[in-house]
Amino acid sequence: MYSPSIQKLIELFSRFPTVGPKTAARFVFYLLRKRKEEIEELIKAIERLKKNVKYCSLCFKPFEGEGSICEICKNPQRDKSLLCIVEKETDLEALEKTKKYKGLYFILGGTVSKLKKEDIKKLRISKLKERIQKDPKIQEIILATNPTVEGEATALYLERVLKPFGKKITRLGRRLPIGGELEYADEQTLKEALKGRK
Amino acid sequence: MYSPSIQKLIELFSRFPTVGPKTAARFVFYLLRKRKEEIEELIKAIERLKKNVKYCSLCFKPFEGEGSICEICKNPQRDKSLLCIVEKETDLEALEKTKKYKGLYFILGGTVSKLKKEDIKKLRISKLKERIQKDPKIQEIILATNPTVEGEATALYLERVLKPFGKKITRLGRRLPIGGELEYADEQTLKEALKGRK
Repeated sequence: MYSPSIQKLIELFSRFPTVGPKTAARFVFYLLRKRKEEIEELIKAIERLKKNVKYCSLCFKPFEGEGSICEICKNPQRDKSLLCIVEKETDLEALEKTKKYKGLYFILGGTVSKLKKEDIKKLRISKLKERIQKDPKIQEIILATNPTVEGEATALYLERVLKPFGKKITRLGRRLPIGGELEYADEQTLKEALKGRK
Repeated sequence: MYSPSIQKLIELFSRFPTVGPKTAARFVFYLLRKRKEEIEELIKAIERLKKNVKYCSLCFKPFEGEGSICEICKNPQRDKSLLCIVEKETDLEALEKTKKYKGLYFILGGTVSKLKKEDIKKLRISKLKERIQKDPKIQEIILATNPTVEGEATALYLERVLKPFGKKITRLGRRLPIGGELEYADEQTLKEALKGRK
């Protein structure tokens, strides 16, 4: 129905998380109404993102700056005996916001659903094993996957896979609303979930 | 919390319609995971949109191609006696999909809320008056604003402003769900609303 340039961009925006074709169309008409300078600002910001942001070689948090290690992993004040495994970047930020967790992180990059082989390959499972093997300072691994079906499956899978390393394995206390995602939980809930890990 | 390039793009995506900061962050991390070629595809699509798409000088529908008039306004099969006023592009597309309306359109570009002067200036009210004045073929003006508070206020405002032209003014039949938006109505509802205009 729409003209080719509009249709093409609707298609690309429809691939964004949480976006369907109707929302994608709204995005396109929003951009159409913007001035040239505003469009250039957006394009520059996307280009800069890809140019400047790299993934920390220890925790896989996206960061900018010198070296290959992010500010959390570099921070000498951090408790190096704790490694908290989260699904994605926004979950890490949600936990950081509580200011109650002082250990390190590892971003898995997603969840396993029904333990499909392709899902597992997409995650950083081998990187995680490598990390735990190489770092004798780690004493406790906190599984902070989301209390969703996929998050639960992922936690169970990780428990099994990480057991051979002989570290203490805990999970976030289950005050988290079932079916909810970490990044949408309020800070108080997250604080209590951290305290109540088991 | 996030690094500057990430923060900047979150800020820009947060200005998109329906997008809050958390969804904007998801968009950014989605783009971070994409390959370089996919990012380039997105940037090119945004650039092409601004380069290729222009607004029809009669109805203000965005279109591509030769001249300054869109394919609907150019179409000799269209009933030139009917002018349907919609709030935005996606409402026009929703009505087109029904294939029941054969007249012309005018895209107002938004709604007036509480008849604020700034709101009215942003809309194409003077362009609309000009259009109606210049085109003696128009016999009926259909107010197809959405059945929301703003849409209703806009329809009442238009009724008052367009009365002096002495044309028949109708509104979409009120089978539309109150508070709903045209683009989310199913085709059957839209067909009946068109039939039941008054």
